[in-house]
Amino acid sequence: MSEVRVIDIHEDVFQANENEADYIRKRLADEGTFFINVMSSPGGGKTTFLSALINMLKDEMKIAEMDVDIESSLDAQKVADLTGVESIQIHNGGLCHIDADMTSRAIAQFGARDLDLLILENIGNLVCPAEFDTGAHKNVMLYSITEGDDKPLKYPLMYEVSDVIIITKMDTIEFFDFDMELAKEHIKELNPDAEIFAVSAKTGEGMEEVADWLRKEVMLYKNN
Amino acid sequence: MSEVRVIDIHEDVFQANENEADYIRKRLADEGTFFINVMSSPGGGKTTFLSALINMLKDEMKIAEMDVDIESSLDAQKVADLTGVESIQIHNGGLCHIDADMTSRAIAQFGARDLDLLILENIGNLVCPAEFDTGAHKNVMLYSITEGDDKPLKYPLMYEVSDVIIITKMDTIEFFDFDMELAKEHIKELNPDAEIFAVSAKTGEGMEEVADWLRKEVMLYKNN
Repeated sequence: MSEVRVIDIHEDVFQANENEADYIRKRLADEGTFFINVMSSPGGGKTTFLSALINMLKDEMKIAEMDVDIESSLDAQKVADLTGVESIQIHNGGLCHIDADMTSRAIAQFGARDLDLLILENIGNLVCPAEFDTGAHKNVMLYSITEGDDKPLKYPLMYEVSDVIIITKMDTIEFFDFDMELAKEHIKELNPDAEIFAVSAKTGEGMEEVADWLRKEVMLYKNN
Repeated sequence: MSEVRVIDIHEDVFQANENEADYIRKRLADEGTFFINVMSSPGGGKTTFLSALINMLKDEMKIAEMDVDIESSLDAQKVADLTGVESIQIHNGGLCHIDADMTSRAIAQFGARDLDLLILENIGNLVCPAEFDTGAHKNVMLYSITEGDDKPLKYPLMYEVSDVIIITKMDTIEFFDFDMELAKEHIKELNPDAEIFAVSAKTGEGMEEVADWLRKEVMLYKNN
């Protein structure tokens, strides 16, 4: 009796993505570029947060931004308008994520080879982006307090794959029933090593701490 | 030269889902049950809104609720605790949507055949749920003002497939840069027939209008 060969397409697809992601990570590290993948819910505050952060850092380092959306180009335009840094829009044609291959093709669009920091603003979604490694050195997740303190329990994979979790829209916390200690407990149960920040891009609260974290990471990659 | 037969699996899958969805719609209409599919971003306010709405209507009609999440059972428990109506939790195992087949299997769990209103609380996501017809008679979308007034431009399909769009968390509108007229314009451009409500489940603002809409729809199906 001959043995039946089983091909697990699901595993194949994820393995191919992982290989491409590792290649992106290595290539960018060799070039001295630190690469972050920024994820959140729709309206989690990614564009506003990233624009404020880029403006704090753009005189110290060379930054570029890639923005993923289904079909609009609003976010890349907004980042370009607010910060003046190079920003490209990726249209993923209705998918709920971006994978390493798409990221690779987008990176190829940048002629520049001397970036210090490359930022990917992923599509607003707490499910799909958590499943696809984009090749980023660090995954950063924005968690808006307006979504409630139970979100880690409901989208656990997102919180597990994120190296840094940034609680956003802190200027509105008094208007929402959001228990900060409980939210942090939920995060720590899923991901004890996650770094947690709490910010308001509007008032600037907590932003300097995030900028310092980025400065430190960028220096590590520069010296590599 | 023999003709090559092309099988479009993507089309096949969507057609099979559409057939099952039509079957659910017809069967529930025959039974006098009005069925709504409620969608939003993560933290868009579905559970709080639905609990408040069910409490306004539960003495007038027989209601049951089905709640989809990846692996937690928080929402179904919350609805059951807050309202006392029958509520079941569906775990979709990491998918970003629920399809008509999954909905059908969930409906089969309800022994009751005399429901007036069946509510599906879909997974928090603005991409995938828009692509899969669940068999609901009406799609209802919650749009939290905390997400910003540009969301229709960024997740157009969700706004196109929704019959009713309910703008939520109105009690916090003064703390966000949300241009209500602009948001409504964006919605109307994508979906001129959409009914739009604006509510706060916390203060009760606008909730009676939504309850009246539901009462009217439920009566239509009852008389069928």
